[in-house]
Order: sequence, then structure tokens, then C-alpha cells
Amino acid sequence: MRLVVVGGVAAGLSAASRARRLDASLEILVLEKGSRIAYGACGLPYYIEGQAESLDQLTLHTPEFFRRERRIEVRTQTEVAAVRHAQRELQLVSGERIRYDKLVWAAGARPVHPSRPDDRTFVLRTDADAARLQAFLSERKPKTAAVVGGGYIGLEMVTALRARGLSVTLYEAKGHYLHRDDDWLTSRITGLLERCRVAVKLRTPVSSPAQMGEDVIIWAAGMQPNTALIADAGAATGRTGALQVTDRCETTLPGVWAAGDCAETNHLVSNRPVWLPLGATANKMGRVAGANAAGARERFPGIAGTSIVRVAGLGVAFTGLNSAQARLDGFRPASAVIDAQDRPRYFRGRKLQVELVADLGTRRLLGATIAGDEGVRGAINVAATALAARMTLDDFLSLDLAYTPPYAAATDPLLIAARQLARELR
Amino acid sequence: MRLVVVGGVAAGLSAASRARRLDASLEILVLEKGSRIAYGACGLPYYIEGQAESLDQLTLHTPEFFRRERRIEVRTQTEVAAVRHAQRELQLVSGERIRYDKLVWAAGARPVHPSRPDDRTFVLRTDADAARLQAFLSERKPKTAAVVGGGYIGLEMVTALRARGLSVTLYEAKGHYLHRDDDWLTSRITGLLERCRVAVKLRTPVSSPAQMGEDVIIWAAGMQPNTALIADAGAATGRTGALQVTDRCETTLPGVWAAGDCAETNHLVSNRPVWLPLGATANKMGRVAGANAAGARERFPGIAGTSIVRVAGLGVAFTGLNSAQARLDGFRPASAVIDAQDRPRYFRGRKLQVELVADLGTRRLLGATIAGDEGVRGAINVAATALAARMTLDDFLSLDLAYTPPYAAATDPLLIAARQLARELR
Repeated sequence: MRLVVVGGVAAGLSAASRARRLDASLEILVLEKGSRIAYGACGLPYYIEGQAESLDQLTLHTPEFFRRERRIEVRTQTEVAAVRHAQRELQLVSGERIRYDKLVWAAGARPVHPSRPDDRTFVLRTDADAARLQAFLSERKPKTAAVVGGGYIGLEMVTALRARGLSVTLYEAKGHYLHRDDDWLTSRITGLLERCRVAVKLRTPVSSPAQMGEDVIIWAAGMQPNTALIADAGAATGRTGALQVTDRCETTLPGVWAAGDCAETNHLVSNRPVWLPLGATANKMGRVAGANAAGARERFPGIAGTSIVRVAGLGVAFTGLNSAQARLDGFRPASAVIDAQDRPRYFRGRKLQVELVADLGTRRLLGATIAGDEGVRGAINVAATALAARMTLDDFLSLDLAYTPPYAAATDPLLIAARQLARELR
Repeated sequence: MRLVVVGGVAAGLSAASRARRLDASLEILVLEKGSRIAYGACGLPYYIEGQAESLDQLTLHTPEFFRRERRIEVRTQTEVAAVRHAQRELQLVSGERIRYDKLVWAAGARPVHPSRPDDRTFVLRTDADAARLQAFLSERKPKTAAVVGGGYIGLEMVTALRARGLSVTLYEAKGHYLHRDDDWLTSRITGLLERCRVAVKLRTPVSSPAQMGEDVIIWAAGMQPNTALIADAGAATGRTGALQVTDRCETTLPGVWAAGDCAETNHLVSNRPVWLPLGATANKMGRVAGANAAGARERFPGIAGTSIVRVAGLGVAFTGLNSAQARLDGFRPASAVIDAQDRPRYFRGRKLQVELVADLGTRRLLGATIAGDEGVRGAINVAATALAARMTLDDFLSLDLAYTPPYAAATDPLLIAARQLARELR
């Protein structure tokens, strides 16, 4: 029995590893288009920033590791040209044919490219993209940069390029960042960027580098799931454009599973399919896809929509729905935003801003947005856990959260926000 | 209608404040034995350590604040001598009688004192205790210290006294710290203390300072709930010695509520009454007691047993049950302990140790123990939230936790521990 996995980053290697653990006899082959596998693609902006000194620091494992330790064959620089599912066969760009019994599609996503790109315009998705940009920055020493797109990668790249001393202009077509139209958050991020002397141009769509005068341009204006080849073979895509999968990560083609940035997943709050390509989700979905491809029956219940990004030193995190999304999904949201010290002042407590959203009718917690320092990650994870458990605001108010002065405030900022929201729901 | 609250620290003032918010017409009187109210008693070791420069930094509010902002009368240095509940009357030590319609008992707990104490022996519970110890340390400049008791306060005081340059010996009657008999944790704390040149004497009971040669002695050998006066009036105490309360925080005396360190509460995992006197619980219980005393009907569902302490720079946190407690409470526990990086190495990731405990039969998550650095608080709070939601290990494995390199690892240490435990439960 032969399992072929297309894609050798987070989802693909999780799938292959899990399948091996559950079935020692399976033949497992991973095909990766690029030359490097198992690298932390989320770390690429930090390689440009200089936090990681080499791309090797982002790489967790080599093909040799998988061959030796897990008996998983990994072929890099191996690109699929077509899927012939009736024959259970992949055709490679090289012309070679690869037979499979079971297939995990973990081909990821690709950045949207500008029309008429030029040699000073870069996307940042793969290790090769990062290497090219790094070489350009070192050799050409650009003074001014444009970043197009105020999403995760755009904001990380603004931070990275400012850290390298470039003058940076951020262009974002919408009036907000990170697909979140919450005014307090937009103001906070804009204020922070402006204090870092970033020229911020919201509501400023740009379609081509040809319009732009900066020395280097980072195009971070969205992503698309890599679905064409498997969709041509008959796998259905959803409303989001990504692959439809069941809660067992199976596509509409029997014997083909999908995981990671090319696939939809269920949103635990709205209970609707969403496409949110993120590394941690890819790891978890990959495990489930690999387990089921190996004959187990495991479920991936979905995601809460948790994400976190560092923007010029500020941690910004989300989970669940904000008010606007909640309305679109048929809820009646109410929300409260608070500022609170995350630790006592005598332990250099920093301010945490917390917005909680709950449904007016059911009092169910729907989402959280948090901005601040170190405490952001822990707080958003608590909210994400509460969402997974479908907690009401009242459940949330009683949470037994840890307190000691060196690490926490006597009343956790999450609970202060929950109390404020409870008063508004009364 | 007059509400009297006995105790002016965490639980008492939370109760009074919440009652005021829900009933503007209530007459509210708070009686506090000490001279200072609303201070963060958990911060006292950090005042001794020098993190907080004065006791005023630990004080959140004055009696004047409550009088002016909340129309709550607060009398300090006012000690109750007897409760005459049939007459709805308190008798003070001064002889004065105070009438009440409703009573919230939030009299806290007191430290166990040694037999035959002397003038170099101190407990650390109140602001007055801290002031006396501070004066002794400054004036007498002791060189050697004994700390009796390896619980929260004992370990915090070991840290504080080492930071002040004293030679410290820690005496603990049991073979472990913090009431947790998990060997890996005991070894880690002992190793850490010994690297800080603390002389650690486990399994070494001491009953009196008379046996001891050190220049100053901190007696941190346990606490007792302040229940005698209200128990004399007929309120029942439980097996733990603290006051029995319903989930509405009402004692067995109608019209008398109790909250904070003098009261039992329900453990959400074992569903049994426990006595775990901690500040964050006092705040939450106080709010519910105050609300119900003001005529609302609110519930305090209980606690997960979450706590956190910093020992010589190491964060140690618990929630739920460890294996030994789980067995006592009738579960069949299985557990896994892992070490994992909490962030990528290129962001100076630190090691987090995580133990998860689950029930073999039901796969329900029962508890977590976590040791490490900044990430400990967030991680224990996630586990506490999962316990409140009665999650199984399988629910926990799918949690959508935040990842970005500056703040987190691609696979959260909690999920690594959960995967390890899942393999052991298979």
C-alpha cells in the first residue's frame, strides 16, 4: 500500500509522520516542489529582520532525517503536473509517473502576484523568495521600501524592513489591517506604525509596481490555495476557493485527503467552512489527514480562527469572530473593550487591551481581540479554549485563572473584560 | 436594609462593591481588623524582596475611596468578638454592637504559629507582619535565615531572602514542595534552590524556633481558616475545617454568606469541597457572595485549583489534580511529562516542562503541572479553561492555539504533552 503526499512543509510532513507512526508497513513518499522541506515558513520575515541568521535556522528536518528516522521517502524539486485519479497516478513535470493508493494533498497556497512585476518586487512565501529578497537587500542596499498589504506578512515585513533601517510606506486597499475592521485596533496599529516612522496609506489600492517609486517592493496582497491540479482531477472546492474536506480531512475524491493551506476547515464558532491558511492548523490537519489515510478514523473538529502577529513590538491576536463577522454569521453581537494592567505596576506591568464579543441572545462567547505584550499569547489561547468549549460569558466569568504578582494581575484582564461585557448584556 | 461585611481585603471588598453596584439603596458597612484595607497580600514577599518599595504600592484603595466612590462605610482596626445571629448582631472587641440584616463573612485565614515563638520568628500574612519583618531585617541585619515550610509563601520567602543576600535554609516536613508529590517537580525545585545556594532540608519537621540557630526565622508552615466566631454562631464547617457554603456562597446560617480564605469551595474536577485559600478565588467568590447578599441569584461553580508561584526565577503552576490526588478522588489517572521549547531558538526560546493527567477510562483531562518561564501562566490558564469545560484529551488535542515565532512555537508545548499522553492512553 503506497501513500503519496504532495507538499513537504507543515501539513504534508505531519501527515506522512503520523501515517508512519500508525502503520509501519505503509510505503510513504513525499513530493516537494521546492528544494527545502520542513522549514518554518512563518519565520521568513524574521530571517529578513535578522533574528534568524540563516534559513537553516528555520529548517527543522532534512529529507535524510525522514528517510533514516521515519522510513519516509522525500523527493525535493519534484513538481506534479497532473493528477490522474482514475489511474491512481500523478504525472510529474519531468514526465515521470508516480503511482499511489492513497493521496494526501498538502500543496499549500501561493501569494497573489502583481500585474507586471519587476526585479525590485518580491513576494515572501518560500525559502527561495526569502533568499532572493535577502540578496537584493544586501547587494542593492535599497533606501526606500513599499509594502503592499496590511495583513500578517505585510505587517511583519514593515517591522523587518524598519529594523533594517529602510524608509517604509505601507499601502493597504482597505481602511484597516489584518481583515479586522475594529476601529480601536486600527487606531492602535496606525499610531504605532507612525511612531516608528512608517508612512501608512490605508484605503490606497495599488495594482502594479509600475505606479510606485520605492527602491524595493514587498507584495503581500493576499494568497490563493493551490488546488488547480487536484480540482482538475475532480476534487470539489468550496465557496472560499480552497478544497472542500470532511471533518476527517477527506476531499470529495475517495482516497484523497487534503490538509493545510490548500484546504477549507470548519469554523468552530460559525460552524461554516472557512479558509484561514496558518501553520499551526496545517500541523494539526496534516496529522488527522495522515492518520485517516493510514486507516484510522480521526476527526479534525475545526478551528477557532486563532492568530497572533507582532507588529513593531506590539502583539496583536484574534480568536473567533469580531462584531462584524458575527453579524454576517447570523449572531447578535455585543462587545466590550477594556485596558488593564497585566501585572502589578511594581513588576513593570504592561497594558493589555482586550475586546470580547458575545451573542446577546444566548450569551455565548463569540470572539476576542487582544493587543499588548507578552501576555497576549496566553490570553488569546484562553479565549480560544473557551470558544472550542462553546462557553457562555457566565462560564467565562468564573474561570480559575492563575495569579501571582510576578506573572499576573489579581484580576485577569480577560475577566475584567468579561465583567464589562456582562454589564452591557444585562 | 443593612449589609455588614466582616473582612476588608479581597473577598470582603469584592462583596461590598458588587452589592453596591446591584443595590444602590443598601446600607453597606465593612469591618476590618487591621489598619489597612484592599492590599495585595500576595505581594508581601515581593515587598520583602524589594520589588515593591513600600506597602503603599500594594494598596489598591483606601477607606476614603470606598466611602466617596461607592458609598461603602469601611471601619479599620475594628475586630469582631462574637456573632449573635438570632439578634442579627455583631459584638465588637470594643464592646460596641453592630446590627445587620445580611452578613458576608470574609474573615480570611491566619498562619499557623510555632509553639514558643521568639522575637526573631515571623509569619507573613498581613501588612503588619511584613512591616515588622522589614524593620527586623533592616535594623538587625541578620546573616542567616530559616524558612519553615515549602509551600507558596515559604518558597517566595526563600527567594526574597536570598535576593537580600542572606544564607537561607529551607525546612519542609514532607518530601516535596507545594503539596505536590511529583518527583520531576521536586527534583527541579531542589536543583534550582541548591544552585541558588539554599540549604534544602526536606523530610525535616521542626516544631519550635527553640531548636533553631538561624538569625531570623520565617514560619510558613500552613494556614487555618478564620471560622471560630461564625461557627460558634452556628455556621457549619466542612471536612476541610473551612466554612461550608452552597454554590451561591451561602453558609448554613440563612442570611450569612461566606467567601475567600475562610470558606470551602467546590473543586470542578473532583466535584468535592476543597479549601484552597487564594486571592483570585477570593475576588470571584466575594463578587458572588455580595451579589446574592444584595438579592441577586448568582452561582460560583467552583475552582479548578489553579495556582502559580515563582521560585528563584522559575515559574511553577498547577491546575486540577495531579496523579496522586486523582487516585484519591477515584479516577484512574495516566500522565505524561514533556520538555519543549516555548518559542523558536532564534527568539531565545526557553524550555517549558508540562505534565498532563487524564483519566484512563473517560479520557477526561484531570490536571496539569507546568514549570518554566513567562509562558507558564498562559499555558496553565489554557489547561484551567479546559478543565472548567470538562474537556477530554481528544478535545484538547485539537485546540486552536496561537502561533507566531516571536511569541510561540509552531506546536504548543501543551499539545506536545497531549500527544504524548494520547499515545500512552492508546
